[in-house]
Amino acid sequence: MLKLFYTPGACSRAAHIALQEAGADFELRLVDFARAEQRSEPYLGINPKGRVPALQTERGVLTENPAILTYIAQRYREAHLAPLDDPFEFARMQSFNSYLCATVHVAHAHLRRPERWADEPAARAEMQRKAPTVMAGCFRLIEDEFLAGPWVLAGGYSVADAYLFTLAQWLPTHGIDSASYPKVDAHLRRMLERAPVRAALEAEAAGTVR
Amino acid sequence: MLKLFYTPGACSRAAHIALQEAGADFELRLVDFARAEQRSEPYLGINPKGRVPALQTERGVLTENPAILTYIAQRYREAHLAPLDDPFEFARMQSFNSYLCATVHVAHAHLRRPERWADEPAARAEMQRKAPTVMAGCFRLIEDEFLAGPWVLAGGYSVADAYLFTLAQWLPTHGIDSASYPKVDAHLRRMLERAPVRAALEAEAAGTVR
Repeated sequence: MLKLFYTPGACSRAAHIALQEAGADFELRLVDFARAEQRSEPYLGINPKGRVPALQTERGVLTENPAILTYIAQRYREAHLAPLDDPFEFARMQSFNSYLCATVHVAHAHLRRPERWADEPAARAEMQRKAPTVMAGCFRLIEDEFLAGPWVLAGGYSVADAYLFTLAQWLPTHGIDSASYPKVDAHLRRMLERAPVRAALEAEAAGTVR
Repeated sequence: MLKLFYTPGACSRAAHIALQEAGADFELRLVDFARAEQRSEPYLGINPKGRVPALQTERGVLTENPAILTYIAQRYREAHLAPLDDPFEFARMQSFNSYLCATVHVAHAHLRRPERWADEPAARAEMQRKAPTVMAGCFRLIEDEFLAGPWVLAGGYSVADAYLFTLAQWLPTHGIDSASYPKVDAHLRRMLERAPVRAALEAEAAGTVR
């Protein structure tokens, strides 16, 4: 059975929602960031990067949302969570997911984890000060260029929606009101209407195994 | 015909090598960073992110290496540039490419483009000071955990090799000797023996259209 290593509210939520959408049989395993469990010896044996998500499968552990999301879509083909039979549309989805992973999440991490890239407190503070501006620029591009509406891809719902939803939920941490981006805002509300999304949020709020 | 927007030595080299490996019919179009062409109105019309690579196809423009590389592998299936028929191995490749895109390239960008995340000169200098340490940590993980040898994937050569080669070539900018990572170092030399890799390097050195 699949086992998802996650932390409530972290980017692992995207993989969690995808598993719920797929109707997958999976186990949830909380990684306790408050106790720095992600850097503990046992967890580093699972994911040497010391991050979430990690998805344990029968063949080994997968990390990185763009890979995990596509894997879930391919494993549960019947759930239609990605345009698997159209290489161009599939690449558009991968492009969107890569942007979230490498640019949007990274912008956010400068607020929450500036220690990754600077040791001096003043430099960390400067990165944190600028982070909301960078984050706002990312969501401006998403709003104006990348979000087809009602879902990320013109062809319909996909795992990219779970990923966007997860990162858009971080906007308030930056003091940004999602209402500044009407399409993103409507997307957030549309996602909350989906039963699998609500199931994921409830399981994470309970903070326990599923 | 495909058109690749690139800059010599930039991460667009990964896509460029993949096109050469695929034997694709494509056009190279230099984006002149010295004149900030990537932020010019015409180029932003092609890629609103203002970055390379961008791959123009008959159906539209694709951005982000993990998406472009997979697209090339799928479009030129007969070149066997990705484990397309094994969802788990494919996810491992995507995971590796995501790590390069979202962690390794980002570590490098703190040396070369600190202005993305800080305005104050002292903060930028601090990020640049720390960047080689972060970069070294990334390549330690690649060496010890992710590079199967002789290629990234145990199953053989893939587009992930083109991507690793491209980013490993940046190590000297950080004052890091690739010899510190014997598997990465051997991989660099192995890549230089491939005719498509040499063709890409020569075309970029010429800095002209192909």
